[in-house]
Amino acid sequence: MSKATQVSHVEGIRHSLSHLLATTVLEMYPGTKNTTGPAIENGFYEDFDTPAPITDEDLPKIEQRMREILKTWGKFERREVTPEEARKEFAWNPYKLELIDDFAQDGKQLTFYISGTFVDLCRGGHVQDAHEINPDAFTLSKVSGAYWRGDQSKQQLQRVYGVAFETPEELKKYLAMMEEAKKRDHRKLGQELDLFVFSDLVGSGLPMFTPRGTVLREELAAFSNQLRLRHGFQKVWIPHMTKKDLYEASGHWAKFGDELFLVKSQETSDQLVLKPMNCPHHTRIYASRPRSYRELPVRYLETTTVYRDEKTGELGGLNRVRSITQDDCHVFLRGDQIEAEIEILLSAANELYATVGMPLRVRLSYRDDSDAYLGDKKLWESAQKQLKEAVIANNMNYFEQEGEAAFYGPKIDFMATDAIGREHQVATVQLDFVQPERFGLEYTGEDGTMKRPVMIHCALLGSIERFLAVYIEHTAGKFPVWLAPEQVRFITVNQEQVTVDFADKIVRRADELGLRVVVDNTNESVGKKIRTAELWKIPYTVVVGEKEISGGELVPRVRKDLEVSGEHKPMTIDEFLKTVAHEAKSRVSKTSL
Amino acid sequence: MSKATQVSHVEGIRHSLSHLLATTVLEMYPGTKNTTGPAIENGFYEDFDTPAPITDEDLPKIEQRMREILKTWGKFERREVTPEEARKEFAWNPYKLELIDDFAQDGKQLTFYISGTFVDLCRGGHVQDAHEINPDAFTLSKVSGAYWRGDQSKQQLQRVYGVAFETPEELKKYLAMMEEAKKRDHRKLGQELDLFVFSDLVGSGLPMFTPRGTVLREELAAFSNQLRLRHGFQKVWIPHMTKKDLYEASGHWAKFGDELFLVKSQETSDQLVLKPMNCPHHTRIYASRPRSYRELPVRYLETTTVYRDEKTGELGGLNRVRSITQDDCHVFLRGDQIEAEIEILLSAANELYATVGMPLRVRLSYRDDSDAYLGDKKLWESAQKQLKEAVIANNMNYFEQEGEAAFYGPKIDFMATDAIGREHQVATVQLDFVQPERFGLEYTGEDGTMKRPVMIHCALLGSIERFLAVYIEHTAGKFPVWLAPEQVRFITVNQEQVTVDFADKIVRRADELGLRVVVDNTNESVGKKIRTAELWKIPYTVVVGEKEISGGELVPRVRKDLEVSGEHKPMTIDEFLKTVAHEAKSRVSKTSL
Repeated sequence: MSKATQVSHVEGIRHSLSHLLATTVLEMYPGTKNTTGPAIENGFYEDFDTPAPITDEDLPKIEQRMREILKTWGKFERREVTPEEARKEFAWNPYKLELIDDFAQDGKQLTFYISGTFVDLCRGGHVQDAHEINPDAFTLSKVSGAYWRGDQSKQQLQRVYGVAFETPEELKKYLAMMEEAKKRDHRKLGQELDLFVFSDLVGSGLPMFTPRGTVLREELAAFSNQLRLRHGFQKVWIPHMTKKDLYEASGHWAKFGDELFLVKSQETSDQLVLKPMNCPHHTRIYASRPRSYRELPVRYLETTTVYRDEKTGELGGLNRVRSITQDDCHVFLRGDQIEAEIEILLSAANELYATVGMPLRVRLSYRDDSDAYLGDKKLWESAQKQLKEAVIANNMNYFEQEGEAAFYGPKIDFMATDAIGREHQVATVQLDFVQPERFGLEYTGEDGTMKRPVMIHCALLGSIERFLAVYIEHTAGKFPVWLAPEQVRFITVNQEQVTVDFADKIVRRADELGLRVVVDNTNESVGKKIRTAELWKIPYTVVVGEKEISGGELVPRVRKDLEVSGEHKPMTIDEFLKTVAHEAKSRVSKTSL
Repeated sequence: MSKATQVSHVEGIRHSLSHLLATTVLEMYPGTKNTTGPAIENGFYEDFDTPAPITDEDLPKIEQRMREILKTWGKFERREVTPEEARKEFAWNPYKLELIDDFAQDGKQLTFYISGTFVDLCRGGHVQDAHEINPDAFTLSKVSGAYWRGDQSKQQLQRVYGVAFETPEELKKYLAMMEEAKKRDHRKLGQELDLFVFSDLVGSGLPMFTPRGTVLREELAAFSNQLRLRHGFQKVWIPHMTKKDLYEASGHWAKFGDELFLVKSQETSDQLVLKPMNCPHHTRIYASRPRSYRELPVRYLETTTVYRDEKTGELGGLNRVRSITQDDCHVFLRGDQIEAEIEILLSAANELYATVGMPLRVRLSYRDDSDAYLGDKKLWESAQKQLKEAVIANNMNYFEQEGEAAFYGPKIDFMATDAIGREHQVATVQLDFVQPERFGLEYTGEDGTMKRPVMIHCALLGSIERFLAVYIEHTAGKFPVWLAPEQVRFITVNQEQVTVDFADKIVRRADELGLRVVVDNTNESVGKKIRTAELWKIPYTVVVGEKEISGGELVPRVRKDLEVSGEHKPMTIDEFLKTVAHEAKSRVSKTSL
């Protein structure tokens, strides 16, 4: 109860608006019963039992009336009431009566909040005075269904959503962002740009990637790998399945057993599961030979798919899938090697997110003083210090949070901000003191005795599928040259043999340079071919006609977002292709062409 | 019965020897009952019910006695007998009595074959005269267990195996090959060269690949892909799982349903399975957009793991695994494009097997006149003709077999011969007229009507795991430079800083060139370090000492099998590294160094 009044100012505005919404709907739709409605992220909602449905078309009228009523409101008045008083006030509303009974049974103090002529049973958390609400800083956004008390067996209600901020500018910015986000929806772009597909026969949450989408997957994974291979990481390979014994040994079975896909062998009595993570398998490779302090850190890298038995959310999207491809790595190292190793991984993450143009900030998640954490406390302290030093050495934007560590070790979480201001949790670097213990991992120390290594888990992209969901929206499908499934499209002005031969020659040269090029030699007008290339958001389009063939020079059309100056000089075909190849190799975001 | 006498001469020798073995064992181990024994590949066996076990140590004595008895044998006499006569002769042998009853019940003519004093119930298939058997061209090889009539619920018998050929030279060659095969056993080399590991916690038939083994996997897959990517193939990506609906649609569920790994979702009611093949998923990508005749062939390429629920055979080996990684591809094409497409794939297979040094021959598997085959008969005829023309155009060693096609289309099977003369079935190219039909795949023809494409399935390596089992034994672990997990090892003569710095400089240059090099800077003698490098079968070893540092030149040690001349001139370090990088890139099997 006391918590409810300690809300931020904007939360107070949002919650107050749900009262305003309630009284407006009660007035406009006689016979309606309002139920509950909190402040939520970016806005508020209120649930109603209405005699007839409210539709999205009704929202402007309701919004207008809300503004009128708002003018008549002043201070919010708080009144403590007895259950009897409350029941008398809400004799007409069975939902409120149910709440009154529940609260009364729990011995809670019941309170009314009164604004204008509207009385609601409420715990508080409003603005002091309704004049603090800017009438141009809120809007109603949509109507959807909801169940009374979130219970599917109970009465279905109508939920009216609104968005609200302190100032009209903030609202405007938010609405523009939402509008932009809708245009960039990766599900829509995934289909338009032919990146991935779903099939009812295969199942939800199990995307398949087309040739174009597979280029994105492979180029991203190759980049993420390259950033680590150069630092002594080595690729390994594990199957996607294991006997459940592996997770009994690791301790995951007890914790996550009912979230796993169980695999039934019809030929053997093996009890198998699909792997939901890769670390236990990787410990088996580490443990397959004796290890010496000299060869540590041992660094395994693998882009591999894990399977998690989640209720799939949005259909047709990559945000929440059941086949999750991780650009995973595991390092087995000595306690005194933590800082140096973390620095390598942070620098890799910095380079990756700088290249994709997403600012990073990191959270250092530490233990607290509770005994919820396993492993040696001294090792924890040293490790946390080393994590922080590595973050500082990498000059990263960071904040610290106690009590956010996993029970098996402290970690660093990476948050990346996209082009329209949304922040997404992406990579993590995670220390682990527990698995080496459970699996009895060892190395021979310099003094000849057996020691226990520490493990690091780290994925830079995180899940490739989820990263793609974020990244497709971040770029709105306008991929940089190094990632573009099709980097250059050559458009022929006619289908004469000399033109076709010339285009073929260009394609062969482009192949040699490792470029992804396509010739559009269809029997369409050049204008139509150019518009088609624009729809595919191809970085460079080159028209090939008599002039280009005889002169040997061309002027490329450049996708707008890649341009710096907008001026393009003619250049030889070989110059052009070499420049594009160089841009792809150096992963630039703007062109020099 | 008539078939039994139409055996080849060497099969006649082998079957005759099983009689000789039988009489010898009956004489030497009184109370023994012989049962049956055929000619098999490379030899023969006979099963016995013996009062006491025969061991491998007994075999030389038995073999010696066989040679003595052989001298006393002449022609094999065939005698037709009535069931009564047969029962009388074999009253002492319940196994033979059981066979006599069975044959009599089936109305078969019973025959005895008599050689020397030995009478056996037998269908025939011997040499005419025992003098045709060279006494120095056979030997007994081992004893193992077997069940009467192959039924685990019946009497356990002892099976004595022999190997036999027409000439002692052939026997000697075979035994030498077997000896060599034992040394090359990929399970042994896999451990010695640290290529792959198994874990009881993960399960049998589920290998994990170490960094060294993963280099082999990745380089082989990259080569196999490269040979197709240059011909317009495009990589795609599919999950390892699907609803069983996909295989109900494809028809695989009815045929292979009980060989699949079933996956149980604990969160949804989906009935899922692990994919045992990739084609049905790939049809979903093809079918996700309308296709025109102009864009065919559509060529999808994917190196991906399928799972098959097989009883695992040999433990610790890659021959028979449950996680099978295929370098798979599927082509969707018009019927008139078959020959050109098959030529591309045959040429890729030729290049691949020439590079790994394994001669290929192919079997063209056609339909016969039965009605066991689905799809249009004219299409079959045209397709078979196109397959053969493509094989001839590629100048391949081939033979044809009617009735060996799959029910859904004709195919080409590739057999590769390894360094010790064993032939292995590897790649296949398979036409498919049925899946396009079942999935209703279409394209718009030139005339604007909807047409059905044909599908091609093709894997060049087949299963990467099985290919590795063959290839590790083919090379005896002496991998060519392009595949060697470690291509060059630099051995330092001391641990002084100047030496270490120099070695580091070399490693950085090697990294730039994409080479896999290691510096052995341990505190051991140079001699011991060289011997260690030899055990790892590393192509090049370079000793780095004062002379190399001051002079800037080196003389590499070259693994024997890579050498042409055995003479090595000094060269600069950069020359050396560039030459090795060039050799790796061009995938040579011999060095110019």
